[in-house]
Amino acid sequence: MKDFKYYAPTWVEFGRNAEEKVGALVKRFGGTRVLLHYGGQSAVRSGLIDRVENSLKEAGIAYVKLGGVVPNPRVSMVRRGIALCKQENIDFLLAVGGGSVIDSCKAISAGRYYQGDVWDLYLRRGEATRFMPLGCVLTIPAAGSEMSDGSVITNEEGNLKKDYGSDEFRCKFAVMNPELTYTLPAWQTACGVTDMMMHTMERYFSKDDDMEVTDAVAEAILRTCMTEGRKVLDHPTDYNSRAQIMWAGSLAHNDLTGCGTSGDWATHCLEHELSGMFDVSHGAGLAAIWGSWARYTRGENMSRFARFAHNVMGVDTSGMSTEEAAEAGIQAMERFYTSIGMPTNLHDLVGRDVTDAEIEEMADKCSDGDTKTVGVLRVLHRADMAAIYRNAR
Amino acid sequence: MKDFKYYAPTWVEFGRNAEEKVGALVKRFGGTRVLLHYGGQSAVRSGLIDRVENSLKEAGIAYVKLGGVVPNPRVSMVRRGIALCKQENIDFLLAVGGGSVIDSCKAISAGRYYQGDVWDLYLRRGEATRFMPLGCVLTIPAAGSEMSDGSVITNEEGNLKKDYGSDEFRCKFAVMNPELTYTLPAWQTACGVTDMMMHTMERYFSKDDDMEVTDAVAEAILRTCMTEGRKVLDHPTDYNSRAQIMWAGSLAHNDLTGCGTSGDWATHCLEHELSGMFDVSHGAGLAAIWGSWARYTRGENMSRFARFAHNVMGVDTSGMSTEEAAEAGIQAMERFYTSIGMPTNLHDLVGRDVTDAEIEEMADKCSDGDTKTVGVLRVLHRADMAAIYRNAR
Repeated sequence: MKDFKYYAPTWVEFGRNAEEKVGALVKRFGGTRVLLHYGGQSAVRSGLIDRVENSLKEAGIAYVKLGGVVPNPRVSMVRRGIALCKQENIDFLLAVGGGSVIDSCKAISAGRYYQGDVWDLYLRRGEATRFMPLGCVLTIPAAGSEMSDGSVITNEEGNLKKDYGSDEFRCKFAVMNPELTYTLPAWQTACGVTDMMMHTMERYFSKDDDMEVTDAVAEAILRTCMTEGRKVLDHPTDYNSRAQIMWAGSLAHNDLTGCGTSGDWATHCLEHELSGMFDVSHGAGLAAIWGSWARYTRGENMSRFARFAHNVMGVDTSGMSTEEAAEAGIQAMERFYTSIGMPTNLHDLVGRDVTDAEIEEMADKCSDGDTKTVGVLRVLHRADMAAIYRNAR
Repeated sequence: MKDFKYYAPTWVEFGRNAEEKVGALVKRFGGTRVLLHYGGQSAVRSGLIDRVENSLKEAGIAYVKLGGVVPNPRVSMVRRGIALCKQENIDFLLAVGGGSVIDSCKAISAGRYYQGDVWDLYLRRGEATRFMPLGCVLTIPAAGSEMSDGSVITNEEGNLKKDYGSDEFRCKFAVMNPELTYTLPAWQTACGVTDMMMHTMERYFSKDDDMEVTDAVAEAILRTCMTEGRKVLDHPTDYNSRAQIMWAGSLAHNDLTGCGTSGDWATHCLEHELSGMFDVSHGAGLAAIWGSWARYTRGENMSRFARFAHNVMGVDTSGMSTEEAAEAGIQAMERFYTSIGMPTNLHDLVGRDVTDAEIEEMADKCSDGDTKTVGVLRVLHRADMAAIYRNAR
C-alpha cells in the first residue's frame, strides 16, 4: 500500500431542517460578512434561500447575494464574485446548491487574494497562498465538492474546463438535508449516483491491491449507491434512500475511498472533454465512457476487475476465468447504468454519431496537444484516448 | 435514521517514516513550545522519542518532555502535565504512544485553562471552555483516541474511571507509521483489535435499522479487523496487515461508523468497572463481557444480530430462525475472540471466580448507586448490569 495523507475537516450537519443551523455554523467558523452564492431560481422558489437568509439574520451575520451560477460554472461569474467580495469586505463564502455553486465559491476563495487573474490558477500559471473560508448548503448529491479539495471551472472563451485543488478548498461546514433533494429530477439523480460511484471507482481501480480496509469500504459505498439509487428513482421522496445517497456522495469524494491507493482519474479526464464539447451532464458522460475505458485498461490489473465483479456487482464468478469475470463485472455495471437511464456509449450520450474529427479534437485537448498523459492504472497517451473514445461510439 | 453531526478534522499522516514529519505538522497547526508526553521506556529505547525530538528541533520547535504515562492514565500525571504547561508556557501538546498517552494529553488540554481541578471536569462538575491544541504519534492501534473526541482518565483515589469529551479533543494531526507497531506483543495486538471492533459494534447494535451506508461501512471495517487481525498475529511484521489494523482502528472511532445511528456503549460502561476492579486490559474485558451483553439485549433488535451473523461473521443463516441466526453470530464472534487469545467470560479474564460481592460492587459503581442507567438498545438498570456480569461468569 502507498503512504497517504487523509484530511477531511468539514463539519457535517446532516438531517431534517439542518439548513436552519447555517447562521450558527458561519459564526462558529468566524464569518461575519457572507457572500451567499447560488444557482438558478429553484433555490429561491423552494423557499430555501429565504430560510438560509433568516438563519443568517438570526445569527447576526451580514450578507450579499450572488445568484446565477450555471452547470459547468464559469470563470466570468467567479470574477464577478471576487469583485463583489472585495467591494463588500466579505469574509466568508456560503454556497447554496450543488457542485457547480460550491466549485464557483472555491474559485472565488482562491482568487480573492490572488494578485493576478483567477483563471491563471486553473492554468497552473500561479499559486494561491491565501484563501477565503467557505461553507455550503448542499442541494445536489453528486460532485462531492462539499468535502473535497477540488474545484472545476469552465472558461467560456475556448470552452476550456480546468481544475484546481487545495486543502484550503475543503468546506468548513456542509449542511445536508436529504429533503432538499426530493425535487431533483430522475435524470439528475441518476447522473449524481453515477458521479459518486465513479469518484469511488477512480480510486478503486488502481495498481495497489493491498489496501483491504479501503477497498472494503469502497465496495460497501458502491453497493449502497446501487441499491439506494434504484430505490430513490422509484420513490423520489423516500427520506432514507435520499439520505443514503447524499451521505454516500460525500464519503465517495472526501478521500476515504482512496486511503493507500493511487487514484486513476482517466475516466474523469476523458469525460471533461465530452461535457466540454457536447454540453452533456458530467455523470452521463462518465457512464458513456467508463465501459470503454475499463476494457482498454483492465489488462493492467485483471484480478481487480474480477474482484469488482464479485464484491460490488454480485456476479457469481465461480467457474469463470479472471478475464471472463472482469468482463462480466463491466457488463453488469453497464446494465446498472442502463437501468437508471444512463447512456453507455457516445451515440446514446450525444444523440447522434460522434465524428472522427470530434474524437481527434477531444483527444487533442485531453492530452494538451499530445504533451501530457492521463491515468495511472494504464498511462494513456493521445492515441489511447482517441481509441477509448472510438471504442465507446 | 437519526440526524447526525460528523466532524473528524484530524490531519492523518500515514506511512513509513511518517514520524519524521511531526515537527512540520506541529508548526502547521501553530505550535511553538511543545509538551512531549509519552509512556514507558519502550518509546525511548526504540529510538522513536529521539526521532521525534530531531523532527521538532529541525522545525525549530522548543519542547519539554514528560514521560511515565501508565495504562489507565492517572489524574495525578494529568495534574503534573498541567503544572508543567503553565510553568513552561507550553502552547501545543504532543502525545507519543497509544490511547493512554493521548487521553492524558486531552485531559491536560482541558485542564490547562480550567479554573478548578481537572478531575471536576470528568465528574461533570464543571465545563472546559478553552483547550490546548494537541497532536499525536500513534504507537498502539486500539483506543481510536487519535481521531475521537473522548478521553478516559482514572483517579487513583477511589479507583474511579471517568470520561470527558469535546470536539476540541480531536487531534490536530495523527502520525501513523505501521512499522512502529511491529513490536506490540500478541496479547496487546489482540486487545487492540477487540477494542476497535467494539467501537464499531457499540454503534452498529442500535435500534436504527435504516442507515444502510453506515452499516455497510461498519461491516466492512469489522470484516477487515478479523481477517487482518488473524494475519498480523501470525506475521507481526507484515506491513500491510499492520497498516489495515492501524487505519481500521481510527475509522472505527472517528464517528464514521455511527453516522445516523444511536450508539449503545453499554459494553464499554460495563467493562470500565472490570478494568477498574481487576486492572485487566480494556480489550480483554470487552471480549469477556460482550457475549453476555449481546444475549441479554438481542431481543430488542433480533434481526440486527441476525444481519451481523450473516454480513460480518459470514454465517450461512439460511434455514435458521432470526433468533437462531442471532445466536450463531454471537457464538461466531466468541470463537473469533478465542482464536486471537481473548477471554469470553469473567473467569478466564480474571483467572479466578468473580464473587457475588464483586459483581454487586461493579453494578453499583456502573449505575452510580442505582441512580443512572447505561445502554440504548436496551436500557440497563443496576439489576440488569448485575445479571449481565453474573451471566458472564
